Amino acid sequence: MTSASIRDTVAAVAAGSVSCGQLLESARLAAEAHASLNALAWVDWDASAQAAHALDVEARAGRLRGPLHGIPVSVKDLFSVRGMPMRAGTRAALPGLGAAEAELVARLRAAGALVFAKTNMHEIALGATGENRWTGDVRNPRDPARQAGGSSSGAAVAVATGIGMGAVGSDTGGSVRIPAAFCGVAGFKPSFGAIPLTGALPLSWTCDHAGPLARSVDDCALLFEAMAARRTDHGMVPRTPRLAVPAGWLAPRMAPSVAARFEEMLARLRASGAQIETVTIPPLPLAWTCYTPIVRAEAAYVHRAALAAGGEGFSEMVLAPLRDGAGIAAVDYFEAMRVREQVRTGLDRALAGFDALVLPTSPVPPPLRGQLEVEVAAGATMSAREAVLGQTLPFSLVGLPALSLPMGEAEGLPASLQLVGARDADARLLALGRWVERLLG
Amino acid sequence: MTSASIRDTVAAVAAGSVSCGQLLESARLAAEAHASLNALAWVDWDASAQAAHALDVEARAGRLRGPLHGIPVSVKDLFSVRGMPMRAGTRAALPGLGAAEAELVARLRAAGALVFAKTNMHEIALGATGENRWTGDVRNPRDPARQAGGSSSGAAVAVATGIGMGAVGSDTGGSVRIPAAFCGVAGFKPSFGAIPLTGALPLSWTCDHAGPLARSVDDCALLFEAMAARRTDHGMVPRTPRLAVPAGWLAPRMAPSVAARFEEMLARLRASGAQIETVTIPPLPLAWTCYTPIVRAEAAYVHRAALAAGGEGFSEMVLAPLRDGAGIAAVDYFEAMRVREQVRTGLDRALAGFDALVLPTSPVPPPLRGQLEVEVAAGATMSAREAVLGQTLPFSLVGLPALSLPMGEAEGLPASLQLVGARDADARLLALGRWVERLLG
Repeated sequence: MTSASIRDTVAAVAAGSVSCGQLLESARLAAEAHASLNALAWVDWDASAQAAHALDVEARAGRLRGPLHGIPVSVKDLFSVRGMPMRAGTRAALPGLGAAEAELVARLRAAGALVFAKTNMHEIALGATGENRWTGDVRNPRDPARQAGGSSSGAAVAVATGIGMGAVGSDTGGSVRIPAAFCGVAGFKPSFGAIPLTGALPLSWTCDHAGPLARSVDDCALLFEAMAARRTDHGMVPRTPRLAVPAGWLAPRMAPSVAARFEEMLARLRASGAQIETVTIPPLPLAWTCYTPIVRAEAAYVHRAALAAGGEGFSEMVLAPLRDGAGIAAVDYFEAMRVREQVRTGLDRALAGFDALVLPTSPVPPPLRGQLEVEVAAGATMSAREAVLGQTLPFSLVGLPALSLPMGEAEGLPASLQLVGARDADARLLALGRWVERLLG
Repeated sequence: MTSASIRDTVAAVAAGSVSCGQLLESARLAAEAHASLNALAWVDWDASAQAAHALDVEARAGRLRGPLHGIPVSVKDLFSVRGMPMRAGTRAALPGLGAAEAELVARLRAAGALVFAKTNMHEIALGATGENRWTGDVRNPRDPARQAGGSSSGAAVAVATGIGMGAVGSDTGGSVRIPAAFCGVAGFKPSFGAIPLTGALPLSWTCDHAGPLARSVDDCALLFEAMAARRTDHGMVPRTPRLAVPAGWLAPRMAPSVAARFEEMLARLRASGAQIETVTIPPLPLAWTCYTPIVRAEAAYVHRAALAAGGEGFSEMVLAPLRDGAGIAAVDYFEAMRVREQVRTGLDRALAGFDALVLPTSPVPPPLRGQLEVEVAAGATMSAREAVLGQTLPFSLVGLPALSLPMGEAEGLPASLQLVGARDADARLLALGRWVERLLG
């Protein structure tokens, strides 16, 4: 498996020093070596080898399809891919998507990517642990007893173990960023609407985002650019990046090991010229209270046919929140939408004076599989769901771009930094992310 | 009371041949003469006389504020007006509107209108009969035993009896068009969003529209132009207007007297060069099924504080649908929204080939006050609510401009024609309306 960047790898494919067939074979060997981690939902190595051959023929003839020519990319089993089955981690009947293939997959192909496999996920994307009764749990590459994170669990594991060079996940409350953080890779949730969702199984149509996972911010940026239907800004890092830490909101919910690592990182960023201030964003705690009714009510509508048929094929883990969602009153949904507007306004206002918010992606190291409570301060525990999702969901709730990138380890396990940018300033956030990655790397 | 148009009256004010004070005095005499019809919710003749005097001073000095200079206009008691109380036909506590004065009122004043009174309405605009336990019923000028229509009941009665030359109403399912039709005046519900609703008490924020009522289409057009925040088209009548009658949808719900009058009108339009075809719009019957959950759920949210406080001050007539709305599940609201999209698509598609749909505004003459069933064909009856609202609500549900204008009488009572135009083609529809009005007048 090459450890080169996607950019360098495509250059090497163009130069003939590496072939798409070799990249695919490397992915196959990694998949074999890490089969027990359960990253893949579906793969056909022979069919992919043929596709790789076609890409190599073109490359040898000097014809590159685009900036991803020959790069093996996996896709979360929530997107419709031509020739591949789709189960979204459930045995329940899925609603029809009305698209032969997800638009973002067609865009990846057009850029030259080799879409070679589908990855396992938290059932219907409604959860962030990667535990799954039907497909088996996806396991953390650093410690198989621990959660890989979710819901784009297999995507993160695939990237971390070299099963392809990039992956596509989805993020409604943190489902790209959390598994990226738990598995030690980069993950990017763009601004709402930047990547089209045609051909994606919705979870919550007002919070859903697609986004790339890869080994570096630059790789994520290349994948993002290929998938995005709109580009709204150009990426530049200011001489003195201004970063804001929502300190008061974070403090009560962070494991000491993560807090210590985060402080080290802030010191390094400061030493490199970043201005870092703490900010108070009063409506931020409201994000948690409005997220659940919005997502559950919308998810219950997406899956209404399967629910009406008795809910067969849903595990209890998702059936309970879906049934809860079906019982939410419209007036309570409207109230949650109103509160969401307060959160949106508060975050937009806070970001007006800064290049990004900076905070740990997860306040705790990856929990054990099955673990329901986590320690967030000496002796203080908290629901694992609230601790882990709570720190990512505000930004998908209001559609701001958010990038997760590794910041080394805490308790010997991967830890990650989260950068949150202003609305539709995706390229600017990615540029900042490259700068931070270089400093911390 | 002058029977001149607004355009001619403003010219007369400019020329000094009539004064705003005289116009106001004429409105005052009409209000006195027709007090038993109960059109007005609030008026201060002395304060208005002072305002009229100021307008007259300006006019004499050759300074006209705008195309409505000196025209007395009343406003439905659902809009916030500086210096006038607001009750919206209820005794329940109203939610705060956060605006000193409705934006459309400020726009009317800027155009020179004299906003002199507030008009009575169906309680919180949730109903179309004009019956009101708190303010007393608004009565039909042609027969006080009959409904004035609603919810902009007083607005229509004021215009019909000369209490001012124009009125502002609101229309969520037909609340401008129905009272206009029942009282024999013109009423215009513009495209969704054309007139700003800041400072208006919402009923259903996805269906609410403000709109003018006046004695003629041209008067409505002048009032609309003053209130509209955006202008999207220019009005022109094609040489051969193409009109579509949604015949199959209408047939089962029309009183024979109205059907006969409508056929006469179509014959006249044909004789004047209009091409008239019948069309089938398959999703049209779905409008009725999705309208009620959308409006009731949204209304229950608007009035949540008063409902939570026990519903005190709501009459049973609106309390029952509000409580129904509070119980509507979010998933059922989403389903209604999906069905609405089908109706929208069906109507947009049907209108693509025509200048307008044409149909009676109400399929029956104004019912008696308290009448719950109406005869829609020989021996066949139907709920009055469904008969009357059913023929207007599809067009506010999907935000298309719809104009109601008199077409003479049926059973000795006012009957009206409804013209429905393409989205955001308000000026074009008003131009067509002027043409039709001239032919039928």
